[in-house]
Amino acid sequence: MPQVAKGLEGVVVSETALSHPDGENGRLIYLGYEIADLANNATYEEVVHLLWTGHLPTRGEFTEFSAKMASYRVLPKSVTDVIRTMPTDSEPMDVLRTAVSAFGAVQKITGKATIEHAMALTAVFPTIMATFDRQRRGLAPLAPRADLNHAANYLYMLSGEVPSDQRTRALDTYLILTADHGLNASTFTARVIASTLSDMCSSIVGAIGALKGPLHGGAPALVLNMLREIGTPENAEAWLTAALDRGERLMGFGHRVYKAEDPRAKVLRSLAERTSEIDFFRLAIRVEDLALKMLHERKPDRRLYTNVEFYSSAVLHGVGLPDDLFTPTFAISRVAGWTAHVIEQLKDNRLIRPDAEYVGPTRMTFVPLEKR
Amino acid sequence: MPQVAKGLEGVVVSETALSHPDGENGRLIYLGYEIADLANNATYEEVVHLLWTGHLPTRGEFTEFSAKMASYRVLPKSVTDVIRTMPTDSEPMDVLRTAVSAFGAVQKITGKATIEHAMALTAVFPTIMATFDRQRRGLAPLAPRADLNHAANYLYMLSGEVPSDQRTRALDTYLILTADHGLNASTFTARVIASTLSDMCSSIVGAIGALKGPLHGGAPALVLNMLREIGTPENAEAWLTAALDRGERLMGFGHRVYKAEDPRAKVLRSLAERTSEIDFFRLAIRVEDLALKMLHERKPDRRLYTNVEFYSSAVLHGVGLPDDLFTPTFAISRVAGWTAHVIEQLKDNRLIRPDAEYVGPTRMTFVPLEKR
Repeated sequence: MPQVAKGLEGVVVSETALSHPDGENGRLIYLGYEIADLANNATYEEVVHLLWTGHLPTRGEFTEFSAKMASYRVLPKSVTDVIRTMPTDSEPMDVLRTAVSAFGAVQKITGKATIEHAMALTAVFPTIMATFDRQRRGLAPLAPRADLNHAANYLYMLSGEVPSDQRTRALDTYLILTADHGLNASTFTARVIASTLSDMCSSIVGAIGALKGPLHGGAPALVLNMLREIGTPENAEAWLTAALDRGERLMGFGHRVYKAEDPRAKVLRSLAERTSEIDFFRLAIRVEDLALKMLHERKPDRRLYTNVEFYSSAVLHGVGLPDDLFTPTFAISRVAGWTAHVIEQLKDNRLIRPDAEYVGPTRMTFVPLEKR
Repeated sequence: MPQVAKGLEGVVVSETALSHPDGENGRLIYLGYEIADLANNATYEEVVHLLWTGHLPTRGEFTEFSAKMASYRVLPKSVTDVIRTMPTDSEPMDVLRTAVSAFGAVQKITGKATIEHAMALTAVFPTIMATFDRQRRGLAPLAPRADLNHAANYLYMLSGEVPSDQRTRALDTYLILTADHGLNASTFTARVIASTLSDMCSSIVGAIGALKGPLHGGAPALVLNMLREIGTPENAEAWLTAALDRGERLMGFGHRVYKAEDPRAKVLRSLAERTSEIDFFRLAIRVEDLALKMLHERKPDRRLYTNVEFYSSAVLHGVGLPDDLFTPTFAISRVAGWTAHVIEQLKDNRLIRPDAEYVGPTRMTFVPLEKR
């Protein structure tokens, strides 16, 4: 009987030159650059350029690249029409999945995947989500502004106000931190689809569906819910003790890859300190300290650390996003990595088709319906 | 350096009780039933019931199941509106991907995947494709007819005419033959997405994107193109010799799994004999015979056999489908298997997240944009 590698843990399915989550050492690099260096010093556009081309842009390349991507932000009317047919109580990730698929159909994002396709898709994600968010609030969509960067323009299209530098920078940092992360489930989905030589849009639509799952990107607001329920630092110890006594999993701790502190959590903590209201940040810090202490006491053999979700929710809440746009905003960031992986997959492609172990009946005698 | 299992060949990623493509022995079973027994004696509805519940329906179950599935065929108006926004020259698979995604958003196919979700999705695939096909021909969509079975209703919704029993039976047989096939790339895509605990619709939309790829389901019309180019049995030898001399791959031969005749090809050949025009069938038979002989002579070490695509195109053409609906019709069949696999995946789920071998640069020094 063959061994079943159910979660494919430890199975190396491809080489990648894009990012390396080094779980043992608590390190994450994109093309050799430490994630903290990029998050603290670059913009999302620079990191996207890095992922797609393999190098950080020169100033000339940056100007050209940013301007081109900004020019791609406008949605075709038919895609706006598709968004308009979605009920206002739709799940935002369902709207994103549908509108991106429609965009691919309308813009003919077919044939061999290219950087042009990657740019076209990445550019419109914020426009799609802002259009839907305004629609459900009874507001007309706003045209994207080419004079704002990717992060600032997203916040502008949601609210109609040009955001402060601090808010823009906070969102930009978040977008950089979550732009790529090895072969996570959504990125792997994109690569499996690409391996059939399907098109870029099909890969990205599949990845959106995978990111939606609560075991992947679908539950970042749960941390926020937990913090809201706890309410005050004084209440933290009793609340956490009760939750752990009931055998519940605490949200925002542990990751399949990281056996040391997630380097993204560190950057996000310091960002949350600058972005959140002071009382809220004090609560988060208190909950984190206590939770880590309690988890260590109760599960001394497991190395559980604060993960990227814990402070993500504080940061995204801090920049003013509604809870149900946290996962779509994760997608707005991660589409850079998805598209980069599709391009990489096609450089030396092989159809990804695993085996299954058949465990059903082996010989059944067919009886016609009339005699059943 | 870890070994890279690029195509995941031979890597067993899960158990399944649904279907077993036994490549060595040229056998395919669904839940223990030989594919030829099902294809020649059952209807698609019976096979769908088998895949979803694990057993063939009794007469009572069949009546209830068929009636319920038929009642789910009507599209909500907003999904028809989404199809209407698609340009008439859209690729049909892009329209299917978009409309199914919209259907999930509108009908709230979210949360834990169920047989109800599977039925709702499977029921509307033909309605979506027929609506689009009529729209691009300038015709109003037709309401589905609950008195026709799945295959007959699809043909009716396309043409407006109730098909003959022979045509219905030919399509029904095709739908049964291609309803499931182990962990092919689209089914695997559906399971990876399901493993994040995302919803049924997200899994199916991802699978549609994977099926679209020419290395999977995206190129069945290529066989037809080849036969049309060859034109007459007399021309076959010269054409095939020239193609092989140029190093071209012949369409319709070889499969990663089968090292013996694909049992589906056998059923399809006999079906093509009854469905195709006699001249066309003679041509296909002649091309098959010659191609197998030549491939064996040129590549004696490889076991190349006629695959499911060779006669699929003859059958689908024979029942009157336009070439660019071959792949969507494959999807109309395979959605039964996709949904069954999603339900199976959730019975004992583990997030599917493989590893990658990082081969990029390891230590780059970040230089700020101003100094680049």
